[in-house]
Amino acid sequence: MQRTRLDTDRIRAARRVIDPVFLGTPLYRCEALEPELGCAVSIKLETANPVRSFKGRGTELVASLLAEHGPRAVVCASAGNLGQALAWSGRGRGLDVTVVASRFATAAKLDRIRALGAGLELVDGDHELARERAADIARCEGIRLVEDSLDIETCEGAATIGLELVEAREQAEQTGPAGPPGPAEVAGPAEVAGPAELAGPVPPFDAVLIALGGGALATGVGHVLKDLAPGVEVICVQPLGAPALTRSWHERRVVTTDSTDTIADGVAGRRPIPAVLDDLLLVADDAVLVQEASIVAGMRLLLDHAGLVVEPSAALGIAAILEDRDRFAGRHVVTIVCGSNVDGDAYRRWVGAAAFPHRA
Amino acid sequence: MQRTRLDTDRIRAARRVIDPVFLGTPLYRCEALEPELGCAVSIKLETANPVRSFKGRGTELVASLLAEHGPRAVVCASAGNLGQALAWSGRGRGLDVTVVASRFATAAKLDRIRALGAGLELVDGDHELARERAADIARCEGIRLVEDSLDIETCEGAATIGLELVEAREQAEQTGPAGPPGPAEVAGPAEVAGPAELAGPVPPFDAVLIALGGGALATGVGHVLKDLAPGVEVICVQPLGAPALTRSWHERRVVTTDSTDTIADGVAGRRPIPAVLDDLLLVADDAVLVQEASIVAGMRLLLDHAGLVVEPSAALGIAAILEDRDRFAGRHVVTIVCGSNVDGDAYRRWVGAAAFPHRA
Repeated sequence: MQRTRLDTDRIRAARRVIDPVFLGTPLYRCEALEPELGCAVSIKLETANPVRSFKGRGTELVASLLAEHGPRAVVCASAGNLGQALAWSGRGRGLDVTVVASRFATAAKLDRIRALGAGLELVDGDHELARERAADIARCEGIRLVEDSLDIETCEGAATIGLELVEAREQAEQTGPAGPPGPAEVAGPAEVAGPAELAGPVPPFDAVLIALGGGALATGVGHVLKDLAPGVEVICVQPLGAPALTRSWHERRVVTTDSTDTIADGVAGRRPIPAVLDDLLLVADDAVLVQEASIVAGMRLLLDHAGLVVEPSAALGIAAILEDRDRFAGRHVVTIVCGSNVDGDAYRRWVGAAAFPHRA
Repeated sequence: MQRTRLDTDRIRAARRVIDPVFLGTPLYRCEALEPELGCAVSIKLETANPVRSFKGRGTELVASLLAEHGPRAVVCASAGNLGQALAWSGRGRGLDVTVVASRFATAAKLDRIRALGAGLELVDGDHELARERAADIARCEGIRLVEDSLDIETCEGAATIGLELVEAREQAEQTGPAGPPGPAEVAGPAEVAGPAELAGPVPPFDAVLIALGGGALATGVGHVLKDLAPGVEVICVQPLGAPALTRSWHERRVVTTDSTDTIADGVAGRRPIPAVLDDLLLVADDAVLVQEASIVAGMRLLLDHAGLVVEPSAALGIAAILEDRDRFAGRHVVTIVCGSNVDGDAYRRWVGAAAFPHRA
């Protein structure tokens, strides 16, 4: 593999800095999802931690470095999850954290950022305007700007997920699968993969579906997989309504868009970062776009068959399977459930019109 | 501590037998719950695994022993979670698993038991009748009967949760808390604990709330806590509608009831096991009963503020806090979220009348 900006040894070292509450997250097969999807599906769950997303892995690195020898003040632009994580990591180390977000950002995320004691500035525009404003604040006040996906620590933190995936896969190869699916398990709807695909022991996973936003998660996890488990297919998934980085990957040049239109707020960027695209071109095997209806269907499947409340970005992997069952039929796929911060009312609308009456 | 049936060294050894997918489960503070509850709350999440409950820890021990040197056939009575876990553990080891359950058991649990390839026999009565029938089957067919909470492996498996709690607590004592709650965080409703209780760093947990059913979870986790962290208060929580073991604990003798009336299907027993009561008397500091409305309120809080879908038994701890805020004000409490297997329609009714339209 050509060199990316990441280094596997640095990623291994990062694990010694990150609060263990963000590490060693659950990875488990969810057979109840499989009849609907026609393939073996394992979930890497990044929501069972104090900030309900994977972002803490990276902000722990950023905050630790600043606490050691950096400015005590830091600012970032965020759709909500990075800001929440940086507020959490900064609070524990006495840092002065400012988060800039769009006033259209998910309210629950903004509430948590405030609750964690960070300063929150809202801009009257989208995430790209928030990025500009955060850069201005950093410049004017001379404080550290944390740029998601560009700052190497945000990629290295996310990349520790890759180490956990590879280690689990190596263990599975040694010990063998934990048993074949029961016969009833593989009797899915006729139009999806039947018993043939899932009969017998299930091999270690051969594909990882990764939500594609700024690119930190995809380049980080992708780097580790290509370095340590090159046979595993790295597939990035982005909404059709926010396709800039996916289009850039396919055209091998930065493609921007004028606007975004998706419920997946966590991945709704318009201006890919050139250095991130360069890395993505080295580690991603494919980048696909999915429809909003598939994202909603994925959220419903994860709720009904896995008992998981997830934000739209975390359902992108399931959406990709739903849109191309043939590609994954009979395979063993890992999907990283990267966040669960949703607004109750919006979530209720998505998973079912009248779901959960509002309880203010 | 007087000797219970459990032994901490055996529990440590058990961890080497249990599939790692059930071990090292997430333990994290959920500050978004705290303004409502008036105390620091950490969640020990036992639902992010292939069977969505903690029962796999025990069935892994049972199935491993049988696979080594026991009969290849095994039967158990179950409200659904033990049967699902035994089916999973038995399938991977080529065991012939039969589960006996009440025909009134949670349909989703019965569906999973079938999907995992186990034989399922339904009895026209409650869990106690299922227990009788399972014993008859074992006697007639000469196969192994697994009795939840009586069979020491079921207690030892659950007890491994206690080891993880103690180890996390020791680590927290060494490294100190991961930062004080942000000021906004502690500004809860006026009637609950205010800033005073939660200001400043939060100490390691000083109480663990444990759902009380047959008693395996409470005696197992309780044994380890009393052995290794005796200062931690062990509080068992049972529904008012299924109070047999709690009443037995208070009266220090087995008390049975004629019926049960609770949505917490996982803990709805009527006939406590004497040996389990003996252990519970040694390791539990208290046993409390909670109302159905509090269980539902707990499920809603966990959904709305923690993004967790839980079954009623898993909300008992939060229900106990809601019913006695003063007792826990300003303290740091761990609640074990022990299962998430729910029927979609019933769950929607509980968390909000019109929640989620049915999607058959």
